[in-house]
Parts: sequence; C-alpha cells; structure tokens
Amino acid sequence: MKKHTVGLIRVVTLQDKQLLQSHGQVIESLFPEIKVVSRSIPDQPYGVNTTAAEKIAIPKIIALAEEMEESLGIEALIISCAMDPGVIELRRRLNIPVLGAGSAAAHAALSVGDKIGTIGLSEGTPEIMRQILGSSLHTEKRLHSAKTTLELFNKKNRSEIVILAKEIESEGAEALVFTCTGFTTVEMAAELRQQLRIPVIDAVEAVAYCTVLQLRSIQRNGP
Amino acid sequence: MKKHTVGLIRVVTLQDKQLLQSHGQVIESLFPEIKVVSRSIPDQPYGVNTTAAEKIAIPKIIALAEEMEESLGIEALIISCAMDPGVIELRRRLNIPVLGAGSAAAHAALSVGDKIGTIGLSEGTPEIMRQILGSSLHTEKRLHSAKTTLELFNKKNRSEIVILAKEIESEGAEALVFTCTGFTTVEMAAELRQQLRIPVIDAVEAVAYCTVLQLRSIQRNGP
Repeated sequence: MKKHTVGLIRVVTLQDKQLLQSHGQVIESLFPEIKVVSRSIPDQPYGVNTTAAEKIAIPKIIALAEEMEESLGIEALIISCAMDPGVIELRRRLNIPVLGAGSAAAHAALSVGDKIGTIGLSEGTPEIMRQILGSSLHTEKRLHSAKTTLELFNKKNRSEIVILAKEIESEGAEALVFTCTGFTTVEMAAELRQQLRIPVIDAVEAVAYCTVLQLRSIQRNGP
Repeated sequence: MKKHTVGLIRVVTLQDKQLLQSHGQVIESLFPEIKVVSRSIPDQPYGVNTTAAEKIAIPKIIALAEEMEESLGIEALIISCAMDPGVIELRRRLNIPVLGAGSAAAHAALSVGDKIGTIGLSEGTPEIMRQILGSSLHTEKRLHSAKTTLELFNKKNRSEIVILAKEIESEGAEALVFTCTGFTTVEMAAELRQQLRIPVIDAVEAVAYCTVLQLRSIQRNGP
C-alpha cells in the first residue's frame, strides 16, 4: 500500500519524541494508509493558549509549514491546535490542503446536531470554533484551573473535566467537542466516552477524518 | 471484527437491488467495519428533486426511519439525499445519530477552505447546504437539462457536468461539492477527480466519514 504522507504541526515545543508524535499516532492508528510527520514550533513551551501566544506563534507556524511543504513531500498539512493558528494564511501560501483541528472539530460536531457543548482550558472556546458553531454553541465549560495543556496530565484536572462534561450532557447538549488538542495527548476522549451517552468529539480525530476525506477527494497522479 | 450496522435511506424508490445498495457499497468499501442496510421510500420514482417532492417525502422518510430504528438494531442513520429531508425532525425522534448527506458534505467542504463551488441538478444547491456554506458559497452551477438523478446515466449529461466543474475550478473555487447524491450512484467523482486539481467532495463519501467519526465518538456498551 502506497501511504499518503501528511505533515502535522504541534504548536507546543516538545523535546520528547513520544509526546511530539502522539497526535500523529492517533491519526495513523485510525488510518493505516497515512504516515504522519510531526514537527513542533520552537520556543513555545506552553503552547498556544492565549491570543497573545497565538500572535507570537503564527509566524513560526508559517515558516515551519513552508519548510515542511518544500522538504517533506507532504500531501496535506494539519495544524494540531484548536485555535487554528495560521490556517487561513497557510491556505493562501501552500499548494496542499491545510486543515485546522479547531475548524474540523466544529464542523464534525455540527454534522450531527445543533446543540453543541464545548470543553477546554481556561481560555475557553477559540474564536474560530465560536464562529463556526454560531448559535449552535449550546453549553460552554472551561477548566479554570488549567492554563496550559501540560496541566492535563494532572489527575485532579482530569476528574474536574469529567464533572464538567457530565454537566454539559445534563444541560442538554447533543454532542461534546474538545476545544484543545491537549485533550488528545492525555487520551481524555476514551475516559469521557465511558461516562457519557452523547458523542465526544476529539479534535485530532476529527481533523484526521477531514484530512483523509480531502485526500480521497483529490486525484493522485504520478508514481 | 464486530461490525457497526448503519441504516441508510434512499429517497428515490428503487426496485433494482444493486442501485438501492450502491450508496451503501461506497460506504462499506471506505470503511469495512461498517455494514449498511439500505431501504428506499415508496412511491417516489423521481426522488426528492424539488421542495414539493421533499414535502411529500418527509413523512415517508420519518415512518421508514422509525421502523428501521426499531427493527434493525442500527447504530446510526444516514439520509442519503443532499436536501437532508427529515433530518432535523428525525434527530428529535430517534435515539441514534442521524446524518444527512447534504449537511455532512457542506461541513466537509468547509473544513478545507472558504471558497466552495457546488454542482447539481436543475434544482440547484439545497437550502440546507446554502445555509451551512453561507458566504463561502463561491460558485454555483447546475445541470439545467437534468431534473432527476436518473438522467445522470445519460452520457451527454456527464460531459456537461465535466464542463461545468472545470468552470467552477477556473472561476476560483477551492473545493467542489456535489449537491446531489445521484452523482454518487453514477460514480461522477472518479471522473472529475481525474480532470480537476481541487478536491471533489462526494456527498455520500462525506457522510460516510462523518458517520464513522460519530460512531467512534460514542462508547459502545454491551455485547
């Protein structure tokens, strides 16, 4: 089987190879026909958790993306952050499909209902997701105690997320979507899916499905 | 491998078993873990090609959907029509995720860009897709000579679709999405993907990806 190579940018600087590749591994386990090459931007140890951090990150994301397109032969690029930092700019600059985890997750949620709950870190629902969800953003919860994705490894924070997610369900949301891809790194979806009846949409999984559909929608020529 | 059973409703009355199952077969070939059970509504030989036909079809779709949920043990239901007839009503009535090909295709298109071209039969872009695409509906073409999906088997109409699709691309759309699932029945996507550079999004394929993501997002309990 000839694999599709897809680039993935982490917006938190990661030295640990396993952490760096964790989102790519989720995608590869869902779609064995995909090979994911992951890179992280420099000097952003706390990721993109505020609009100020996003502003600093975007030029770094653009530079890394252009380098990846040029040197890696990737067929699509995923920005693995729910704020979609740089996605709109990159769609103008690159010749391959560029997908953002935030927009993909919001669209995936809307494909099944119009009362969507969101859960994320202290910063709340990113603007891009808020725009897409519009009046379908039904319930919004945030983990006020956690400012960065790194804090999601903390057990107390995980328990808090379960409590908030149950509230979202009991308040009437028809689907729950993560507004932070750090939730993927700590495998939060598996835990929540055991406790909730509504769909729990993981942003990295959502962008994986969108990416593979896009690749399928383009004819591949050449060898 | 335990398969997920998904129901699929065709809104054109089909006696021919192969035609009836053609959309289901597309989904099963993409996702071998899915078994699709297809049914078509009665007395609708020309399908749902106008809002008047939609009005007549909706009660039949609801009755068939409720019967399928009760008798088939399906885990999700797909309405395989780009007008999404009955989808909103069914989400209130059924206990399983209900997905419409039109909304799924529109959301899939938006996950990769904001200049979307649409192509369909003489009726044009369905209202549900128009609502979702909003200001991202960049170019719209319709095959004026074809009123029903049955006419897509005609060679002259196929050539006409290729011409219109190329116009959509040359006018600057970043992705092309079908506004009729009859395009799937006649395998229009494969032909267009050979001739276009932009993604060509087939509505049945799009709803397949959305459905599998939703099933993944729900915990399955029991045997």
